[in-house]
Amino acid sequence: MEKIAVVGLGIIGGSICASLTKAGYCVDGLDNNTYSVEFALHAGYINAQVNALSDYDVVFIALPPQATLDYLDNAVFKDGALVADICGVKEIVEKTVYSKRRNYRYVGLHPMAGKETSGIASASPTLFKKANLIITYAPQTDIKDVAIFKGYAKTMGFGKIVECTASEHDKKIALTSQLAHIVSNAYVKSPQVKGCDGFTGGSFQDMTRIAGVDEDVWTPLYTCNRENITKELNLLIEHLSKYRDALSAQDDIQLKETLREGRLIRETIKRNND
Amino acid sequence: MEKIAVVGLGIIGGSICASLTKAGYCVDGLDNNTYSVEFALHAGYINAQVNALSDYDVVFIALPPQATLDYLDNAVFKDGALVADICGVKEIVEKTVYSKRRNYRYVGLHPMAGKETSGIASASPTLFKKANLIITYAPQTDIKDVAIFKGYAKTMGFGKIVECTASEHDKKIALTSQLAHIVSNAYVKSPQVKGCDGFTGGSFQDMTRIAGVDEDVWTPLYTCNRENITKELNLLIEHLSKYRDALSAQDDIQLKETLREGRLIRETIKRNND
Repeated sequence: MEKIAVVGLGIIGGSICASLTKAGYCVDGLDNNTYSVEFALHAGYINAQVNALSDYDVVFIALPPQATLDYLDNAVFKDGALVADICGVKEIVEKTVYSKRRNYRYVGLHPMAGKETSGIASASPTLFKKANLIITYAPQTDIKDVAIFKGYAKTMGFGKIVECTASEHDKKIALTSQLAHIVSNAYVKSPQVKGCDGFTGGSFQDMTRIAGVDEDVWTPLYTCNRENITKELNLLIEHLSKYRDALSAQDDIQLKETLREGRLIRETIKRNND
Repeated sequence: MEKIAVVGLGIIGGSICASLTKAGYCVDGLDNNTYSVEFALHAGYINAQVNALSDYDVVFIALPPQATLDYLDNAVFKDGALVADICGVKEIVEKTVYSKRRNYRYVGLHPMAGKETSGIASASPTLFKKANLIITYAPQTDIKDVAIFKGYAKTMGFGKIVECTASEHDKKIALTSQLAHIVSNAYVKSPQVKGCDGFTGGSFQDMTRIAGVDEDVWTPLYTCNRENITKELNLLIEHLSKYRDALSAQDDIQLKETLREGRLIRETIKRNND
């Protein structure tokens, strides 16, 4: 059986270990934090600590962007090893991978799963259950390697698995994930938020659930996708201004039309996703 | 036993009927739409159709804002009847109620419950279970009447019940509900939204769940609370611009600090609400 290593035992890395181990694979883990390694061993998420990474056929790198780039550049992989990262930005990772000769095969992964908490204690063998997974490929990618990771993904419990280029990924993710975290983080900054306990329904809960983003994790994600996220932010501000302008101008017909436009788009998305 | 009437058999009115009837009250209903009345009768939500509103001791008006104002102005209530509305805006309703002599007692209600669907078919005896309820009072309000509606609210299953002035309600609701619906409605207007199926996680789902607002229902809510919602929209645009400016200026320290500010506020809200 192939030897699998997971580098980085946070919520995502830990859940990769946990779900693959549960499915019968033998998975070893590696983390700078000895507590995380101990936890993963005790929880039965990993078989052992990784000693030499060059012993492994398959390596999942589950680290933040900069650490991932450093790893891909400097770690010693087995010749022909299959390596995947799980970063929330993909163009920058691909650029690093393909910037020089390398002895490993690479596929990009982005599991659309997580919690408001992080770390190995938040990992779970069912974290990916029915979640979406994005797999990114380049002209250099061997489609057989994509198929192998699709197999692992199904084993881990992922629902929909989509494939695209790193560029397409970064454009879409700027809207579906990165912008959402900024909006939620900005939303709670209204002075009215104080004392709003009891005045909230599901809409406020949904809007603010992810407001508590860890700035150490998210700042690099934004700076690695600066252009796309800036574009989305500008668009949202522009769209929000239309409601504000209609309200200020007392143009209620325009306000209604602006709301209607959004409803019709929402209905199209729902139809496509159902 | 007091005779209770509910005017307007939509999702909220229907659920008031259903939850009070389930608790043993005798509730009659009224709606222009005969289908809604038939549905409520067949579902056992109401005992009978209201014939003369002036026969009832307690009246819940569960209509949109303008229809509520018309009703409060023109309907013939029993002398001393206890009347409540359920509108999502409160100052304008109070203004109508207290603008002239009236023979009924009034208390404002705003149940923080709903679904993405509307109408009697979406009503349920458990819609209000653990939901927040806001009760509004004015200098003219008899606190005994507030207590009576609190009793009904507990019977209906509400969780937290808060009391405040109509003005305080309208300020807070502009943030906790009305702004959220605009943001969600605006969020889906990015061109990237097309083909984002498979590229989404919980954050996108949460952000866009309420995007499909019914413009006929929400336009009047916004226009009745124009000043507060415009203020919140301006604040949000201003806050969002700070992330955009930091990103554009490549000022990553500022970006991190902007994210950190939001996280700290979010943590305070969470602590207060837990």
